[in-house]
Amino acid sequence: MELHTNSPIGVFDSGVGGLTVLDECLASLPGEDFIYFGDTAFFPYGERSVQQLRARSLRIVDWLLGQQVKLVVVACNSATAAALEYLQTQREVSIIGVMAPEAHAAVQASRNRRIGLLATEATVASGSYERMVHAHDAGAQVTSVACPKLAPAIQNGDAFDADLLELVRDYAAPLRKAEVDTAILGCTHYPMIDRLLRRTLPGVTLISSGEEIAREVHETLERKTLLRGLGKEGEYRFACSGDPAAFVELGSRFLQMPLGKVDQVDVDAVTAS
Amino acid sequence: MELHTNSPIGVFDSGVGGLTVLDECLASLPGEDFIYFGDTAFFPYGERSVQQLRARSLRIVDWLLGQQVKLVVVACNSATAAALEYLQTQREVSIIGVMAPEAHAAVQASRNRRIGLLATEATVASGSYERMVHAHDAGAQVTSVACPKLAPAIQNGDAFDADLLELVRDYAAPLRKAEVDTAILGCTHYPMIDRLLRRTLPGVTLISSGEEIAREVHETLERKTLLRGLGKEGEYRFACSGDPAAFVELGSRFLQMPLGKVDQVDVDAVTAS
Repeated sequence: MELHTNSPIGVFDSGVGGLTVLDECLASLPGEDFIYFGDTAFFPYGERSVQQLRARSLRIVDWLLGQQVKLVVVACNSATAAALEYLQTQREVSIIGVMAPEAHAAVQASRNRRIGLLATEATVASGSYERMVHAHDAGAQVTSVACPKLAPAIQNGDAFDADLLELVRDYAAPLRKAEVDTAILGCTHYPMIDRLLRRTLPGVTLISSGEEIAREVHETLERKTLLRGLGKEGEYRFACSGDPAAFVELGSRFLQMPLGKVDQVDVDAVTAS
Repeated sequence: MELHTNSPIGVFDSGVGGLTVLDECLASLPGEDFIYFGDTAFFPYGERSVQQLRARSLRIVDWLLGQQVKLVVVACNSATAAALEYLQTQREVSIIGVMAPEAHAAVQASRNRRIGLLATEATVASGSYERMVHAHDAGAQVTSVACPKLAPAIQNGDAFDADLLELVRDYAAPLRKAEVDTAILGCTHYPMIDRLLRRTLPGVTLISSGEEIAREVHETLERKTLLRGLGKEGEYRFACSGDPAAFVELGSRFLQMPLGKVDQVDVDAVTAS
């Protein structure tokens, strides 16, 4: 495939969580165009099989390729774990996923080599982050905590009340006990409560997928000489598979800006490129 | 262990090859102090067993720890492949090896996802680079070429005559045929003939361990807030296990500067810290 510097970057997730990744990309790559796809009709990915996630992700990648993207970002832990390698072997475009960049950053950042992980039950159970941390530092100690109630509370927009504070304090307790100096926020929803997390884990360096993916995308485009200059402000547009009105409402809270028009797209109607 | 910003960085190799890594570190981290250890009495590592390399590398790391280093760099492919994970589990200091940084950089740089590798027979046979490239991009195509005569020719200081040109052209031929757009120089000796390699592989992005390790060290120290400012020019000193005079002669050619006094060190006399 031919690659053009002026082509957009495609980002997808099962819903709105990946918008925290898009947010960091918009901030650090202001000259780039982005297309974000939220697969809200298929949400949540955590309940789907590996086979389903591979087939579904490939359809989304093909839709993004139809939009002439120069790079694809899988801004979703479940899709990365189930489908990233498969997608990379199936299509010519370069595809970047979450997890590997955060694991690498955590190893770079930790001084005492004790690293914490807050993530969904499925992500913790997969052991992916732990493996990736150990690929960079076989002697690092990883303390993982499954936080089943955290992403739903954030998605629902729960108030920052005593219940939420206690929930976060409970999840953070094992990390404090293990004296980690670095913690991976292993779910794209968590940066929405970064201030609360920072106060709950004082002195701990928090690693989030948004920042690390934005860095990875930047380095990748720079090395491929596909990075767009700052001559023109980048554009961004949104599409989803479910109800656009619901996506607009939830998405504008995640991105802290109005989303404009959101297209509803049936990726099942896409033919492979 | 306590970490101090002003502590030196330890770098070791079986001989002088790692000086191309030190060279890039000196250029991009001018405020840091470095201690380089060349294990010339035990050279070449390619002929040693995994058990021997683990035991020997651990003694070297312990000697470096006795010099209060804040970070250790294994600037040697054989030692990284055989001992990096072992060393990381045995000592508290952070230890960085070659290979992983170059594999990551090659995936970032390649546009057509066809990556070449030039390395020693042992490195190619280990399949390490290929595995590491595929960890970042499962769909990348890797073309590996074992170059048994190249490191000896460089070490011996062979003239840039027709024979050397033909040797390099022969090794590069499979990469040209495979139409790689990025090639990993998978041996620390190869940057010594970078101009010749660049001309032999026009249009191909060359990835060398020196540059990528320097970048990895920089990011690591920055994230750990252990990076030294530029208030003072860094110092560097050298030690080796074999004949210091031979090390000075060979090393000054690799580093393109006089090495000053080189200490001869018996790492077998080091007691574990």
